[in-house]
Amino acid sequence: MARVYNFSAGPAVLPLEALQDAQKDLVDYQGSGMSVMEMSHRGKEYDALHNEAIANLHELFGVGDDYQVLFLQGGASLQFAMLPMNFLGAGQTADYVNSGHWGAAAIKQAQIIGNVNVVADTSKDLPARMPDLSGVSWTPGAVYAHMTTNETISGAQYKDLPTVSAPLVADMSSDILSCPRDYNRFAMFYAGAQKNLGPSGVALVVIRKDFAADAGKALPAMLRYQTHIDKNSLYNTPPCFSIYMICLTTRWLKQVGIENLYRQNVEKAKKIYDVLDSSSFYRGTADKAYRSDMNVTFRTPTEELDALFVKQAGENGMKQLKGHRSVGGIRASIYNAFPVEGVDCLVDFMKDFEKRNG
Amino acid sequence: MARVYNFSAGPAVLPLEALQDAQKDLVDYQGSGMSVMEMSHRGKEYDALHNEAIANLHELFGVGDDYQVLFLQGGASLQFAMLPMNFLGAGQTADYVNSGHWGAAAIKQAQIIGNVNVVADTSKDLPARMPDLSGVSWTPGAVYAHMTTNETISGAQYKDLPTVSAPLVADMSSDILSCPRDYNRFAMFYAGAQKNLGPSGVALVVIRKDFAADAGKALPAMLRYQTHIDKNSLYNTPPCFSIYMICLTTRWLKQVGIENLYRQNVEKAKKIYDVLDSSSFYRGTADKAYRSDMNVTFRTPTEELDALFVKQAGENGMKQLKGHRSVGGIRASIYNAFPVEGVDCLVDFMKDFEKRNG
Repeated sequence: MARVYNFSAGPAVLPLEALQDAQKDLVDYQGSGMSVMEMSHRGKEYDALHNEAIANLHELFGVGDDYQVLFLQGGASLQFAMLPMNFLGAGQTADYVNSGHWGAAAIKQAQIIGNVNVVADTSKDLPARMPDLSGVSWTPGAVYAHMTTNETISGAQYKDLPTVSAPLVADMSSDILSCPRDYNRFAMFYAGAQKNLGPSGVALVVIRKDFAADAGKALPAMLRYQTHIDKNSLYNTPPCFSIYMICLTTRWLKQVGIENLYRQNVEKAKKIYDVLDSSSFYRGTADKAYRSDMNVTFRTPTEELDALFVKQAGENGMKQLKGHRSVGGIRASIYNAFPVEGVDCLVDFMKDFEKRNG
Repeated sequence: MARVYNFSAGPAVLPLEALQDAQKDLVDYQGSGMSVMEMSHRGKEYDALHNEAIANLHELFGVGDDYQVLFLQGGASLQFAMLPMNFLGAGQTADYVNSGHWGAAAIKQAQIIGNVNVVADTSKDLPARMPDLSGVSWTPGAVYAHMTTNETISGAQYKDLPTVSAPLVADMSSDILSCPRDYNRFAMFYAGAQKNLGPSGVALVVIRKDFAADAGKALPAMLRYQTHIDKNSLYNTPPCFSIYMICLTTRWLKQVGIENLYRQNVEKAKKIYDVLDSSSFYRGTADKAYRSDMNVTFRTPTEELDALFVKQAGENGMKQLKGHRSVGGIRASIYNAFPVEGVDCLVDFMKDFEKRNG
């Protein structure tokens, strides 16, 4: 078995240990005689995995019983709709920060539901940057304030959290658990799992119970947060195998430790940014003050060389380095489970590619 | 490796071949150097699996390009809401057949959205039966008529389809592709995958494109069928691994053939029903005219013996035979992938249990 270095922005590389555990038990989970995929979601084997994943996440986030950890379906994209459907009523306003592609995507869905105040907008800025939230005029009485902590496509990230009186809600799809963060400052945060947590097909939502309690009473059951809180994410059949993979990944996260991962993530990103900063061949596309540790975006002097870079890197075992189809260029996504050796390999290749084409 | 006989109602037994293929490729899919769980949903490897699954389903259903095969999230439960949200506007009526637990669940969500006419109701009948739809008064001009083809909990099933002028919509979660059926008579049919198609975490929706086209224009993107039709179920990151498992399962379905599976399903069910009919110890809980080939429900003379039956069967490698928590008793779910040998084993055990306790 030869594993490649997988720079995919998501679905993305998973911890090898988690994959190997899943492989070993795929047909016969721990002597039960069946796959996790074949188990009743009301049985004791699945129940143990479900609740272990929840407990691990509570511990990793450092949040108490005033928060509910939910496993929902539909990805962050359904959260873009569920959030305003639950909280943004007629005559109310929600504040949104437009920091790029994903901030804008959340805003677009919220505007279908109710009144949105875009308090800051850097979505068109180049180099890419996040809005400075220190001087923002938040709406008094806003039902919530929404931000995106990391813009996967542009490669910009917030390291600090804003001070805001409205309940703070964040899409953390591409940087959740990649750095120490005070999760207790959020009324709700959510993430599609397929970058730092597990495979696609499950969205993690962590929500303060008192925030959710009275919300969305007129909605269909599946679209109301309280439904899933009441049933511990077992109102209907959950995406069991994806949650099992989250359970295995959280075991690995606990073992390595978020502080250690963060140190490693910063180090991995810095190695690539150092090449960009010492080169006149490569050009980073994110503002230095907001550079992401998760998605490093850059370009060579021409689109043709960008394409050649991606092609030749692929031939050398470094896959999925192509930038998002909406912006082009090159993107190295280096989430928690991406190995340091893969970054070293990329850095060597970047230097060599510059020599050959600079 | 010892596989048990897994009578779970869902998530349920999958074809062993599909599980073994998934296991072999779990860490390194076909020499790509990564797991299917780690692949971009926009890359060529995943794309091939996604489109093969869709093509296989088109072929198995015998529906043409006037239908779209969609892979959505949220299970049948989200379809209970999405369907009326898309089609049931103010001043309109949708007809619903209440055939039991799942029929009633669909009705409850639709009533949150709009006006529902329950045209027939056998949800309280014992023995369990489906409504006779030949004499039903359908609502003239109803936007659609909704039925449930198999009630997983009560063990009752429709073998025939009704004649109705409104667009016919069916929840087929527990009997899809288990028997030959004229799928072209439906405007839409849907199923949570976790019984006859794959693991949980993906809902199959097959919808006639002209039915979907103008529906739900005011809805958030994720809740509108047309969004997913436009993007071939790739509007957002799909549940890739679950769809991959559907791809593997449809390969197996095509290889065995639906006619052959149907013959085998009837034969499997008949073996158990024959024991019930020749015994005064066991009592089937579904009306003979509507007995399900998928979920065989029965009882012993007492609740204590029901519990003993489930316990001793479990000790003999026959798992998850307990009836649904809402009705109790015993339920043998014997979907497509459930082996004939497992039914033979159950039948022998039933006879022996009767001898010992009758």
